[in-house]
Amino acid sequence: MSETPDSAVRTYIEHHRAVFLDDLVEWLRIPSVSAQPEHTPDVQRSADWLAAKLEETGFPTVEVWRTPGAPAVFAEWPSHDPQAPTVLVYGHHDVQPAAREDGWDSEPFEPLVRDGRLYARGAADDKGQVFFHTLGVRAHLAATGRTAPAVNLKLLIEGEEESGSPHFRALVEERAERLTADAVIVSDTGMWAEDTPTVCTGMRGLAECEIRLHGPDQDVHSGSFGGAVPNPATAVARLVAALHDEHGRVAVPGFYDGVVELTARERALFAELPFDERQWLCTAKSYAAHGEAGYTTLERVWARPTAEVNGIGGGYQGPGSKTIIPSSAMVKLSFRLVAGQDPDQVEKAVRHWIAEQVPPGVRCEIDFGSATRPCLTPLDHPALRSVVRAMGRAFEKPVRFTREGGSGPAADLQDVLGAPVLFLGISVPSDGWHAPNEKVELDLLLKGVEASAHLWGDLAEHWRHAP
Amino acid sequence: MSETPDSAVRTYIEHHRAVFLDDLVEWLRIPSVSAQPEHTPDVQRSADWLAAKLEETGFPTVEVWRTPGAPAVFAEWPSHDPQAPTVLVYGHHDVQPAAREDGWDSEPFEPLVRDGRLYARGAADDKGQVFFHTLGVRAHLAATGRTAPAVNLKLLIEGEEESGSPHFRALVEERAERLTADAVIVSDTGMWAEDTPTVCTGMRGLAECEIRLHGPDQDVHSGSFGGAVPNPATAVARLVAALHDEHGRVAVPGFYDGVVELTARERALFAELPFDERQWLCTAKSYAAHGEAGYTTLERVWARPTAEVNGIGGGYQGPGSKTIIPSSAMVKLSFRLVAGQDPDQVEKAVRHWIAEQVPPGVRCEIDFGSATRPCLTPLDHPALRSVVRAMGRAFEKPVRFTREGGSGPAADLQDVLGAPVLFLGISVPSDGWHAPNEKVELDLLLKGVEASAHLWGDLAEHWRHAP
Repeated sequence: MSETPDSAVRTYIEHHRAVFLDDLVEWLRIPSVSAQPEHTPDVQRSADWLAAKLEETGFPTVEVWRTPGAPAVFAEWPSHDPQAPTVLVYGHHDVQPAAREDGWDSEPFEPLVRDGRLYARGAADDKGQVFFHTLGVRAHLAATGRTAPAVNLKLLIEGEEESGSPHFRALVEERAERLTADAVIVSDTGMWAEDTPTVCTGMRGLAECEIRLHGPDQDVHSGSFGGAVPNPATAVARLVAALHDEHGRVAVPGFYDGVVELTARERALFAELPFDERQWLCTAKSYAAHGEAGYTTLERVWARPTAEVNGIGGGYQGPGSKTIIPSSAMVKLSFRLVAGQDPDQVEKAVRHWIAEQVPPGVRCEIDFGSATRPCLTPLDHPALRSVVRAMGRAFEKPVRFTREGGSGPAADLQDVLGAPVLFLGISVPSDGWHAPNEKVELDLLLKGVEASAHLWGDLAEHWRHAP
Repeated sequence: MSETPDSAVRTYIEHHRAVFLDDLVEWLRIPSVSAQPEHTPDVQRSADWLAAKLEETGFPTVEVWRTPGAPAVFAEWPSHDPQAPTVLVYGHHDVQPAAREDGWDSEPFEPLVRDGRLYARGAADDKGQVFFHTLGVRAHLAATGRTAPAVNLKLLIEGEEESGSPHFRALVEERAERLTADAVIVSDTGMWAEDTPTVCTGMRGLAECEIRLHGPDQDVHSGSFGGAVPNPATAVARLVAALHDEHGRVAVPGFYDGVVELTARERALFAELPFDERQWLCTAKSYAAHGEAGYTTLERVWARPTAEVNGIGGGYQGPGSKTIIPSSAMVKLSFRLVAGQDPDQVEKAVRHWIAEQVPPGVRCEIDFGSATRPCLTPLDHPALRSVVRAMGRAFEKPVRFTREGGSGPAADLQDVLGAPVLFLGISVPSDGWHAPNEKVELDLLLKGVEASAHLWGDLAEHWRHAP
């Protein structure tokens, strides 16, 4: 029986998996915790280690890019085909803090393989999912007999994702020319479940603000003045209460302007997923599902924009009581945005709406932080179809579709580079991102290698540049 | 020209004012700050000093009553007339904390007379207003030739008013038999202005609660779960927003049950007061008047029940942002109550209403503290008319009517003893209660002596017990 391309990839991976895993374990031993200053040298060491490994993999160009914070690693391997598309892989080499006493069963930076799982901080988030591309591209070359990838392959692996990527956008803007790509592949997400390979098609955006309402110049006595002057804590509560209508929709006029609605096909695809709401509520630590009328829970978290209170405060919050009308009160709101929403327009709409809500005698201050745009790749986008085929070949199963409710720095790549964002991830919910005993399933990790190996050829074949 | 009773009182006061003031200054030197443990011996000394002075004044019974906190002073001087009513004067001998560096122009416990004013902590609140009764009762005896007051006169001067009177109610309940009275005279308030003698006819009550709403078992990610589970901060805000209707009325069903409405006469009397809303807003440190539709500002603070937020909190309140759905949120509410409202009924109504507001998936805890009842003496009550006549004779001016928006321990006397509460006070808003440079106007203080001197005879004459 002659070898198919898929079995050739598998054979190659089988031969090289031991070294691949040894290398990953070596990388995972570096505690590249970006949030903890004492690990600054480790984050640098992690970047250097990755750079060396990418050179060893064969990338002709590998650079460590300094930022005002932690360094990023950039690598580039041009195709020999002048019509090949250019693909930029995004991931990160920094990790969340971890300590044995947080509840780990083993040392978080002494990787341990047990029952087909590799336990270590960063195993899934995100070193494992970055690293599968190294064996992936080698398998791609070996199986196709190429000496360079079928696409122009670029990697940008940042070092501050776990610290909120404070310098990422500036870096991307500064290096935009080097980063130019036809598509961005984000390797920092996961799939629905061990037995349900999925491709994520979008990510919500994020706009955040803090609203401070000022009433009396100082706290005043609620006996002497109660009932006769405006109370800023009441005003802030009324603002929050007015934020949603009785159908759970955000009541700010203009908020939904431009929102790309779910298509019937997407809703049908979401509905196909084996979703257990009771199970989901356990994960959400919550006792009821609640949200915009007319949408399922998955639709609410993946495809609908929201307004949430992240914090509220004003007046006396200590033990016992204090009979005051507080001088001020504040609320922190965050808005998750979906495709079609422009954060600047949302900010404008929210500011306008708030100005109309604030009662006489109350002064209002509003601060918006920097926003993150949403991203969404249409189901029929050729690059998305390539990702789906690559996953399907790796898993030998039908691939389903998800979205991501959170927001990420990859949106900056979409924004600055003008390229669609695609997601290729093999992590599963049980992997325990940010939690003790983070792990990656070894068989899924190798499926990730396979999917990476298939993706480059598929993209080049189906999404060529016009000659 | 033969001496009238009023001029006899004045003559007596004129002859004894110097000693009276020297004595008061001596008392004011004792820093009886009940809130500061280092002043515990001073509070005791203040009680002993007052007890000795009341004996010297002629009270046949004087006792220092211990409590688990600071001591109270009780004194009793029975009338020789078996049909005389019994009157209990309430005041306090403890004072607010004070230190030169808080902004005092002189030492707060080194009394200073300047421009007809006596500056010292406690000068107005409340030692001066307690002490005027000592010279008052002596003037009453001198001018009428009596050897005992025309009424059975009792004094209860507590030592913890500035610390929230934590043991006052228990004391009153325990000593109820000794304290029995037909009326309570509170000497711990003030009047409208230097040139506007007034009598206060009521005080609002107070019910307080803390409401804690619990959503997810821990803070959860607003990207992963935002828009799909209940947010307790939103729920607490909606609760607060629903607390008032669009007319500024408290929307809790049953809240207004039993409320004694203002009569047309009372509203007319309030309207006669020279009220300057701009000036009032300065005192309120506020930029707008706001409250229940259909009532003036004075009516709102004096005669209408209210619901106010004293504090609200939940989720992340630090700098920057944190994209969470908070696990819990809380609000502290206080309700000012007016005559006819029963704190227990209000608590029941509020609990019932809250239970109906809390959305599915949110758990609610409510704690009510101990409540204070409102008090109100009708304008035509014979004892109130005596107080008004006594003030009118002292000031030789028409006496107007006010109420008090705050709440006080005197309500416990009304409650336990079943006696109406009347207010006799000569302090003015500029006296600076609880503030630096507290003072009392000496001429008003002596008017207080005069009013006290007139009151006992008037009460005995117009409000005799049936033989």
